[in-house]
Amino acid sequence: MSVFTTVAIDEITPFLHRYSLGQLVELKGISAGVTNTNYFVTTTHGKYVLTLFETLRADELPFYVNLMVHLAQHGIAVAAPIANLQHQYIDELNGKPTLLVPCLPGSVAESPTVEQCAQVGEMLAQMHLAAASYPAKMPNPRGPHWWTTIAPTLYSLMNPQDADLLAAEVALQTQHQHDTLPTGVIHADLFRDNALMNGEHVGGFIDFYYACTDVLLYDLAITLNDWCVLEDGEIDDERALAMLKAYQSVRPLNPAEIQAWPTLLRAAALRFWVSRLLDFYQPAAGEMTFAKDPSHFQRVISRHAQRRNFWI
Amino acid sequence: MSVFTTVAIDEITPFLHRYSLGQLVELKGISAGVTNTNYFVTTTHGKYVLTLFETLRADELPFYVNLMVHLAQHGIAVAAPIANLQHQYIDELNGKPTLLVPCLPGSVAESPTVEQCAQVGEMLAQMHLAAASYPAKMPNPRGPHWWTTIAPTLYSLMNPQDADLLAAEVALQTQHQHDTLPTGVIHADLFRDNALMNGEHVGGFIDFYYACTDVLLYDLAITLNDWCVLEDGEIDDERALAMLKAYQSVRPLNPAEIQAWPTLLRAAALRFWVSRLLDFYQPAAGEMTFAKDPSHFQRVISRHAQRRNFWI
Repeated sequence: MSVFTTVAIDEITPFLHRYSLGQLVELKGISAGVTNTNYFVTTTHGKYVLTLFETLRADELPFYVNLMVHLAQHGIAVAAPIANLQHQYIDELNGKPTLLVPCLPGSVAESPTVEQCAQVGEMLAQMHLAAASYPAKMPNPRGPHWWTTIAPTLYSLMNPQDADLLAAEVALQTQHQHDTLPTGVIHADLFRDNALMNGEHVGGFIDFYYACTDVLLYDLAITLNDWCVLEDGEIDDERALAMLKAYQSVRPLNPAEIQAWPTLLRAAALRFWVSRLLDFYQPAAGEMTFAKDPSHFQRVISRHAQRRNFWI
Repeated sequence: MSVFTTVAIDEITPFLHRYSLGQLVELKGISAGVTNTNYFVTTTHGKYVLTLFETLRADELPFYVNLMVHLAQHGIAVAAPIANLQHQYIDELNGKPTLLVPCLPGSVAESPTVEQCAQVGEMLAQMHLAAASYPAKMPNPRGPHWWTTIAPTLYSLMNPQDADLLAAEVALQTQHQHDTLPTGVIHADLFRDNALMNGEHVGGFIDFYYACTDVLLYDLAITLNDWCVLEDGEIDDERALAMLKAYQSVRPLNPAEIQAWPTLLRAAALRFWVSRLLDFYQPAAGEMTFAKDPSHFQRVISRHAQRRNFWI
């Protein structure tokens, strides 16, 4: 499904000669992922993941790749990019920019445990601290400016009641500025399928290609909205409490963050409601298969709107 | 034995707060090593090795530490130094410069197999290639200038016959210049106890504190002299052949290297004969216990001198 660019044995072999990773043992396409082509590359030294970037250009990659390098250097559970013999992380294969990283231990936790949610919250906080010394910055391409621009293009496509709710939600967020909250590098897309769990522990956070500079607590809101959610959009109190407590054991929230938390939870849901609506009503060519149910995040927002206890 | 500087729980805990590695689970001194203090530090994130440098100063460490960072970035099996929240690899504890690295898989192979020797040869060649893009340089502090200076201080302490042999060996090396051979960063001390073997594979090369810029093939000579040696100083043909073949599968030797190889094998043995003689006759305070038998490398040289087939 997600091998958009095919790589043959006689193409990977000379490619691997540009690295210090031994001889090819096996090459195998990975079916997960909707944007890039990924292969498992097993060599005499170990098992690696090769990504061929299908949309990002080589000159757009350094922010993300150097961030992964930086976080790995701090012991954060991420795949550390591997440099080629020219000491470049980004190489090229079959006309696409590439990245090679070690294969991380673990698998996606579709129904995470309370302890897994705690470990993810703790690692996320550690990631926020470790990223404080990362020098590069990247505006959030999916922030308030984006959804405020995109949402009105969707109203006429939606049923009027949902469109009113979306417009109201955008208006609500417009009333809140979060300029005074701690900012830094955030993952911005830390859903369950972007983490490999090795038992209770975080094997690795993956897919940093939405990472950007934004409000740190917004990252926790995105994460909690997915990891702690029930099928009906309600949040599981036990998992949410565990995640928040573990996050705060590393980076305690300040009073302004505690005050902003309920709004940020709704902002985090709004961002994905809008992007899923966009995918649903205006799918990019060939992506139709992957469109996810937009109404899920509408329900998440609705539950947050009714909530009185936000686990802090 | 090798915990020279004691670290207590209430000292490591605030130290760990300067990193992104989770909470302390266990702290345990490591008995191996003769120069530095090493501890296993287990946290909620994983198992690490903490080194407190007992002789090297913080300002002497960057060449070695950045080299480890560089090699790890290339996928070479070395422990990747972990940066603290100030993005510094070198920190300080109890007045000593420190380094934290992940615990590598594997253990020391005292009686390496043929396949292990091949894997070490292959990884060493990969290391030489990967280090070519490492920008820093470091003269070899234990090169010809060193042994030519030190050897004469030992003659009067040795029995006259051995002293004559040593003088002859130093004279022999003086007749050979290796200025035209490929140079680069070498480990320079890749004995069996400086590699962790994970089954047949290299779990990691360790102890890079003799690394320097020198003739690449000299590094292979040092390595082969230890990994492929029998108790009587003879070299095991099968292991030596496997190591050389694997090394050359990655970095083929040029004609000048092939010609220099027998002399380099003797130079590599001479360097350790002299340093062991020095440790034996002029031990540094407190190191007496660790003095190794100098005559071992005298026998290695003697065997090399008689050899007609050097496995290339």
